[in-house]
Amino acid sequence: MKAVQVVGYHENLRLTEVPQPEVTGPFDVIVKIGGAGVCRTDIHILEGQWAEKSGVTLPYTIGHENAGWVHAVGSAVTNVSEGDKVIVHPLITCGLCRACRFGDDVHCENNQFPGIDTAGGYAEYLKTSARSVVKIDDALEPSDVAALADAGLTAYHAAAKAARRLRPGDKAVVIGAGGLGHIGIQVLKAISAAELIVVDRNPDAVKLAVSIGADHGVVADGRHVEEVLELTGGHGAEVVVDFVGEGGATSEGVRMLRRAGDYHVVGYGENIDVPTIDIISTEINFVGNLVGSYNDLCELMVLAAQGKVRLHTSKYPLERFQDAIDDLDAGRIRGRAILTP
Amino acid sequence: MKAVQVVGYHENLRLTEVPQPEVTGPFDVIVKIGGAGVCRTDIHILEGQWAEKSGVTLPYTIGHENAGWVHAVGSAVTNVSEGDKVIVHPLITCGLCRACRFGDDVHCENNQFPGIDTAGGYAEYLKTSARSVVKIDDALEPSDVAALADAGLTAYHAAAKAARRLRPGDKAVVIGAGGLGHIGIQVLKAISAAELIVVDRNPDAVKLAVSIGADHGVVADGRHVEEVLELTGGHGAEVVVDFVGEGGATSEGVRMLRRAGDYHVVGYGENIDVPTIDIISTEINFVGNLVGSYNDLCELMVLAAQGKVRLHTSKYPLERFQDAIDDLDAGRIRGRAILTP
Amino acid sequence: MKAVQVVGYHENLRLTEVPQPEVTGPFDVIVKIGGAGVCRTDIHILEGQWAEKSGVTLPYTIGHENAGWVHAVGSAVTNVSEGDKVIVHPLITCGLCRACRFGDDVHCENNQFPGIDTAGGYAEYLKTSARSVVKIDDALEPSDVAALADAGLTAYHAAAKAARRLRPGDKAVVIGAGGLGHIGIQVLKAISAAELIVVDRNPDAVKLAVSIGADHGVVADGRHVEEVLELTGGHGAEVVVDFVGEGGATSEGVRMLRRAGDYHVVGYGENIDVPTIDIISTEINFVGNLVGSYNDLCELMVLAAQGKVRLHTSKYPLERFQDAIDDLDAGRIRGRAILTP
Amino acid sequence: MKAVQVVGYHENLRLTEVPQPEVTGPFDVIVKIGGAGVCRTDIHILEGQWAEKSGVTLPYTIGHENAGWVHAVGSAVTNVSEGDKVIVHPLITCGLCRACRFGDDVHCENNQFPGIDTAGGYAEYLKTSARSVVKIDDALEPSDVAALADAGLTAYHAAAKAARRLRPGDKAVVIGAGGLGHIGIQVLKAISAAELIVVDRNPDAVKLAVSIGADHGVVADGRHVEEVLELTGGHGAEVVVDFVGEGGATSEGVRMLRRAGDYHVVGYGENIDVPTIDIISTEINFVGNLVGSYNDLCELMVLAAQGKVRLHTSKYPLERFQDAIDDLDAGRIRGRAILTP
Repeated sequence: MKAVQVVGYHENLRLTEVPQPEVTGPFDVIVKIGGAGVCRTDIHILEGQWAEKSGVTLPYTIGHENAGWVHAVGSAVTNVSEGDKVIVHPLITCGLCRACRFGDDVHCENNQFPGIDTAGGYAEYLKTSARSVVKIDDALEPSDVAALADAGLTAYHAAAKAARRLRPGDKAVVIGAGGLGHIGIQVLKAISAAELIVVDRNPDAVKLAVSIGADHGVVADGRHVEEVLELTGGHGAEVVVDFVGEGGATSEGVRMLRRAGDYHVVGYGENIDVPTIDIISTEINFVGNLVGSYNDLCELMVLAAQGKVRLHTSKYPLERFQDAIDDLDAGRIRGRAILTP
Repeated sequence: MKAVQVVGYHENLRLTEVPQPEVTGPFDVIVKIGGAGVCRTDIHILEGQWAEKSGVTLPYTIGHENAGWVHAVGSAVTNVSEGDKVIVHPLITCGLCRACRFGDDVHCENNQFPGIDTAGGYAEYLKTSARSVVKIDDALEPSDVAALADAGLTAYHAAAKAARRLRPGDKAVVIGAGGLGHIGIQVLKAISAAELIVVDRNPDAVKLAVSIGADHGVVADGRHVEEVLELTGGHGAEVVVDFVGEGGATSEGVRMLRRAGDYHVVGYGENIDVPTIDIISTEINFVGNLVGSYNDLCELMVLAAQGKVRLHTSKYPLERFQDAIDDLDAGRIRGRAILTP
Repeated sequence: MKAVQVVGYHENLRLTEVPQPEVTGPFDVIVKIGGAGVCRTDIHILEGQWAEKSGVTLPYTIGHENAGWVHAVGSAVTNVSEGDKVIVHPLITCGLCRACRFGDDVHCENNQFPGIDTAGGYAEYLKTSARSVVKIDDALEPSDVAALADAGLTAYHAAAKAARRLRPGDKAVVIGAGGLGHIGIQVLKAISAAELIVVDRNPDAVKLAVSIGADHGVVADGRHVEEVLELTGGHGAEVVVDFVGEGGATSEGVRMLRRAGDYHVVGYGENIDVPTIDIISTEINFVGNLVGSYNDLCELMVLAAQGKVRLHTSKYPLERFQDAIDDLDAGRIRGRAILTP
Repeated sequence: MKAVQVVGYHENLRLTEVPQPEVTGPFDVIVKIGGAGVCRTDIHILEGQWAEKSGVTLPYTIGHENAGWVHAVGSAVTNVSEGDKVIVHPLITCGLCRACRFGDDVHCENNQFPGIDTAGGYAEYLKTSARSVVKIDDALEPSDVAALADAGLTAYHAAAKAARRLRPGDKAVVIGAGGLGHIGIQVLKAISAAELIVVDRNPDAVKLAVSIGADHGVVADGRHVEEVLELTGGHGAEVVVDFVGEGGATSEGVRMLRRAGDYHVVGYGENIDVPTIDIISTEINFVGNLVGSYNDLCELMVLAAQGKVRLHTSKYPLERFQDAIDDLDAGRIRGRAILTP
């Protein structure tokens, strides 16, 4: 089958012919790819940033945001059958460790991450597990939802965790209205009545945020911390969800937080660097957020099927992977680039 | 009445005669002091560290860890009467703001802090509020429990918050077995079945910690992070409660934390300075901890009455306040110094 | 001032002249009534059903759903001032007992209930407490929101409690689309993404429910349990909120509940009568629901100000109290009858 | 191998020779039985009470409380290996349904229950799943802990759920100090600081309860409700855990419950039959409790290894199964009867 592979760091990806994956274990599921999201992480992989961490051997097929149709299943698979339309959770988890047994499968002690440390979905077929496939609604198309498998799932996870404490009248600040923030805003809107304040450097992103449900849009132009404080009666917001995490976002974000508030870290790059005296005197919390669990992905697919979460996509045939990468790198993609069969 | 006052920063406290406080508002409670804890914060006040923050006008009476007997009450006070033995919550709160109405009275928008920003308990009598007095068990003496009013209450609050997620088999690391850590260990032991690992630089403090219930004592001698990792199967602990917060404790402490773990910040001094990538990839949380609420203090008094929380005290007559301060400053106090009538 | 009083059980209410209430305690608040809800409980009071329970002495002024303007305040009142537009929480609570200190003020050990056990709001002025008044948005009118003070607050409280466990894809059944159910549906819609199934005997009420956000309307015509099971994939719903509680609603409602589901009891009349073997083998819960707390009322007022919760009202001048009572008794009121100045 | 089978309802069990179970699926685990608990449910099975519900075909091997050593494992089993000492969770669960993915595996939509609906552990070997085996501490013996697999696990689950809301000063009533109550008391003692009040008809059981940690023992002799009310300041307890559920226990138990309290249903027999008006006016909850999850069993094994939970056992060689059944039926067993190889 056709597959797009990393053949060397700081080299272009290469389209090549590789053997089609086959069922070898009882829980294996082979998915015919309908859509594979092109993610900034893919560019970081090419830059070698993940080389040591993942320990992967080159060449290998990348692509960790996948959806498609079940093509074949192992002997013990009972939850999907051939032909089912599915989205693929990014991790393959063991189901036996304590974290898996609590439903916190993203902390599985024995996980694999196709597209990062084993063959991914820039290809015709992907090998994953029964524990990773979520059947999607008839009304949804794999190429439309593929990018929700990782970026969207992370945003859902953070927004759902943040929303647990949000009550009517509470304020939530979303820092960053890009891909993840876009999903986070729609999720917060769907599951809470909190007042949403969205902050972004890009005025167009702020406008878009307001058009999909944000109650207030704030352009990060230097006065934005003050503006958020004004919008929150001088107190700051009960919750800040930071999808940026670099360029000074965290120190500004902490100033937007109310006493006893929660600062959700999602985006990354810089350090959280805050005096302990400030943490204890205001009794604030910093909450880490990784990608969501399998059940989180099921819930996000419900919101997608209900039309409450939508994502704009630009589609490219698999062969045009280089255009997709280039467009992403150049900032020419609105929403998310998706490779299709 | 006699009172010990701050008359100038970088000067000694002075014993003087001041008017006895009187009931003027409907919720006022006048407490005859039975014990007033001498706290490191009192030394910091004298050094001027709180001058700007508190905005207090000199001279004023210090002392924020108080217990005694109710001497007089305002017209609307229904929860205590003259002669009741009470411990005094450090804050006077309004009872009307949203935080107070949720029971989070330490985040009261209109609070006063006797001993910090108004007259405190190094005196014969203290003026506080019906909302701040907790009746204590017949078996407890004001001079024995006074130090639980602030230092102990902070430790209780953090330990109780940490314990909510601790299940049998989970590990909790307590960093710092001094005054607060000492209480924290006893509380964790009383309300959870977690395995307690106590880390301190002082081998005697570690020994004492083990004698009051810690399952493992670790002397912080350079190999302590590794030792904690060995005691936790290489994973780290589900919870770290850091009563130190300075001298490198936080960066070491974070290395002792398991994936998805909670790092409770109680002690302060240095910065939490952690890459966001580490926070999200392990999905850890940093949890701020201020002093406990009124109900927390009631619960701590239950544990004290049950003998599950004990504190060693060294008592000094009020007139010998300078000896108490000097002994504290010189590290000659075991447990807590208390001024008595 | 004018007041409408109970002068005898099984007798009509009587409009009479009584002394205007005055501030006597430090936390007293006198409210000039802008709207007083006419509630079925008022009819039950006249029938003597509350005589023994409340221990009230006749004659007295009824009316427990009140809103208006602050007319005078006691010396210690800091949260409202003369002229403020307020809704009145139905209970006067002490603020000092353990329940109050936790924010569960409806379980206050020393509460009063104006309109039930002391003078209520069918009058020109009402005496309440600083702890009971919630400032409302400029855009809201007292006569429009008065009925949210008790009936609406109960529905909010139950819906908000139920929603804590509802995740996208979960189903919630609302039994009863009358006054309370109407509010409950709007609240569940505003704060969760659960799929709402509303069951009522009255086809018009079902239609109205769908028009305000219910995803499915089911007329209780004998096949309704089966219909709910079909709508929930044969499993039943994660949550049932029962605003009826009589006429067989509870035994039918339990059959609509999924394994590990929550059955919220709000309406009352019959017994919950379920074999313990069924409770344990399906591990279901029955959750009691009383009126909401002060903070619940603040949150409901936010939803009202945002236009997310609306209530249809029929207004009557105070003098026409008998028409309001008669119309309510005869089922001629759509929404809620309100007495106005 | 030898196995003890149900050959007909209302007939004695029969010791017979059956084929030894073999690994056929990838997750199969064959356990060499070290101890099999004899449970009252086994007697109910013989009486035919489970015939219809389980749909099992006779003859079959009973025994649902099992522990032993891993004898053989399927190809995909990674969490145990041959020779491991294990206790066996009573259910075989799928790991793929939504409940399993949340860690609520007792609500698995595709579970099997060895000893009830398929071959159990009154035998030399048992076939179970990788998802059902928990490795136990070296210091524990299978024949000592077998009875914790079901009876003990149910008690642990209820006690742990109840303890989540228990704070120092709260009271918990345990109704029934028999097998389950015995474990429940030890668990509550280990993981909470609540004051425990144990109620039982049998004065010896009450004495035993006090000896293992109950703070107060109350003999159910007619005055017991009043006695509990006196011990709780007239308010009732925050939590009642009812391990009896018959003979009037529930109506008495509800009278022991404080406003806003939780009534945990564990034992069964009679109906919960309570007026909805009482449920809402006191805002109490009824909480169902089934057997615990896999992770619950892991936690209980931690408490057992720490010596915090102990169970008295009477051991019988497998061949003497009839004596064990007879002794249980005649009330001659103290603690729990265990069949051993």
